[in-house]
Amino acid sequence: MPHAQISPDNLEIQEHLQYPQYGLIVCDANLYSLYPSYFSLGNLPLIQLEASEDTKDLDSVYRLYEFFCESGLTRSSVVHVFGGGVVCDIAAYAVSTYKRGCRLHLYPSTLLAMVDAAIGGKTGLNFQGYKNHIGSFYPAERIVLHPCFLHSLPADELRQGYAEMMKNHLLWGQLPLPDWEGQIPDVEEILSHALYKVSICMKDPFDEAERQILNFGHSFAHALEGLSNYEIKHGDAVALGMNMACDLSMELELIDTARYDVLKNILQQYPYPAAALDIAAKQSFQDILPWLRQDKKNSVALRLILPVGDQIKAVEISL
Amino acid sequence: MPHAQISPDNLEIQEHLQYPQYGLIVCDANLYSLYPSYFSLGNLPLIQLEASEDTKDLDSVYRLYEFFCESGLTRSSVVHVFGGGVVCDIAAYAVSTYKRGCRLHLYPSTLLAMVDAAIGGKTGLNFQGYKNHIGSFYPAERIVLHPCFLHSLPADELRQGYAEMMKNHLLWGQLPLPDWEGQIPDVEEILSHALYKVSICMKDPFDEAERQILNFGHSFAHALEGLSNYEIKHGDAVALGMNMACDLSMELELIDTARYDVLKNILQQYPYPAAALDIAAKQSFQDILPWLRQDKKNSVALRLILPVGDQIKAVEISL
Repeated sequence: MPHAQISPDNLEIQEHLQYPQYGLIVCDANLYSLYPSYFSLGNLPLIQLEASEDTKDLDSVYRLYEFFCESGLTRSSVVHVFGGGVVCDIAAYAVSTYKRGCRLHLYPSTLLAMVDAAIGGKTGLNFQGYKNHIGSFYPAERIVLHPCFLHSLPADELRQGYAEMMKNHLLWGQLPLPDWEGQIPDVEEILSHALYKVSICMKDPFDEAERQILNFGHSFAHALEGLSNYEIKHGDAVALGMNMACDLSMELELIDTARYDVLKNILQQYPYPAAALDIAAKQSFQDILPWLRQDKKNSVALRLILPVGDQIKAVEISL
Repeated sequence: MPHAQISPDNLEIQEHLQYPQYGLIVCDANLYSLYPSYFSLGNLPLIQLEASEDTKDLDSVYRLYEFFCESGLTRSSVVHVFGGGVVCDIAAYAVSTYKRGCRLHLYPSTLLAMVDAAIGGKTGLNFQGYKNHIGSFYPAERIVLHPCFLHSLPADELRQGYAEMMKNHLLWGQLPLPDWEGQIPDVEEILSHALYKVSICMKDPFDEAERQILNFGHSFAHALEGLSNYEIKHGDAVALGMNMACDLSMELELIDTARYDVLKNILQQYPYPAAALDIAAKQSFQDILPWLRQDKKNSVALRLILPVGDQIKAVEISL
């Protein structure tokens, strides 16, 4: 039972919140405070987690292990995880390693988590400032999208989801660009982005081949997040990172000016926050290089996802 | 590259120690002290781990993560792990979760690790007194048996391996019983036991079905180990646990007297240490029951591997 596969069958939309029937609940503390009547509806054991890049670590996992022990979690019971990418990542890691893997249902509560973080079975923790340095591959057996959670999502959190949707659009033009004016995307739009990620991850569950294109902008993004001590948020960092990837492609003559302009024109539509632009502008390539080398995908040569001709693909470069 | 399968192709015997060509080394501190000239032969980054049930925890894993970070471990490099079951379990867990999985070569140095612990892809850590409560499924891409390590293995450590070999013989009579007189088994004998475990685990990598018979004696053993604060060693606990399983089967009338006598006759040949017999004799079934309930395989009913008729198989019982 514990080892689910990545599959569209495991993805569903629930218009109305239904309280789980059995198991345990791990819940983002902020989400709990926004929906107290829902989370106090039933009587399942529940733990609240503070979600930040600083709490995305082994200490939080240790607290979850203690909670699982106290609640007598067995392999046949279900851990229901409500929250954004950080809470999903922490809790899914804990579930994947408790008794070598228990049953996992994810209820992503942010746009970023719905279209990206909760999809594809990656879990992750930060370690000594490196993002997602500890982790596992552990697909949830069920991912439930509750679009209603988005009504309480602040605009700058919504924007983080837009960034990944913009990435999807750049990778596969059939997917719509989000509405930049801060409108909540409709259910079908969210679902189409989530299903695109499922379709890529299914072909490559362990991130060895096809799936690497989803890291477009991400190596640079991880560097920017680390260098800014996570002041730059993930989606914003990915948007900035895709710009840097395009600039590098242009510099290495992997793309021509026409293609560069097309990509930059789309990227320029993103509503970058001034503070993030400021920090990014201060980083030279030399500042970023050590972070790129430390990135999980890079060993001897740098492996980056870059625009090449009319494609976006993995390129090995020595720098 | 990181996600290897369980396969006989990944198992090999090396008569003469060869120093690894690249990667990192994790080494049992005691083994290092026995073979200093070998381990100081090359210049790979090396960390020594103290092996005990008390150090088989998240703190040791944290130290390994730090070592991996300092040494710049990448996904394409190899972590070579030399040691018995405890060191293999700790290090394999750390490797399985560092950057979501790096390359793992195991060099089991005890008989128990050669025929059992290093085979089958299970990693494990103790948590709050519960054995292997945290863990992952992560088969090594290469398992190298160095029978020469056994020459420095104390007799009571050799005996721990005998216990698992006796279990294999009880499960499948084609496998030889070990020589109880403390002789080191020959290479073919070790290999046949290791391959038997590979053949079972291949059919059931996530321990959901066929593989559970390998837990014969183990639910009781984990209870005895915990209750004795790990004073009873694993193999001895498994031998005692198989006796308890036979006794329970007889009590529940799952086997007849003739079959019981056959099993007990084999089990009586094992050279039990007096201290372990003493501790085990003092435990009532009521002492052990809470431990059985906490065991990873048990949820509502107790799921135990018991002799039933002329088989040994999983039985659900409510107690």
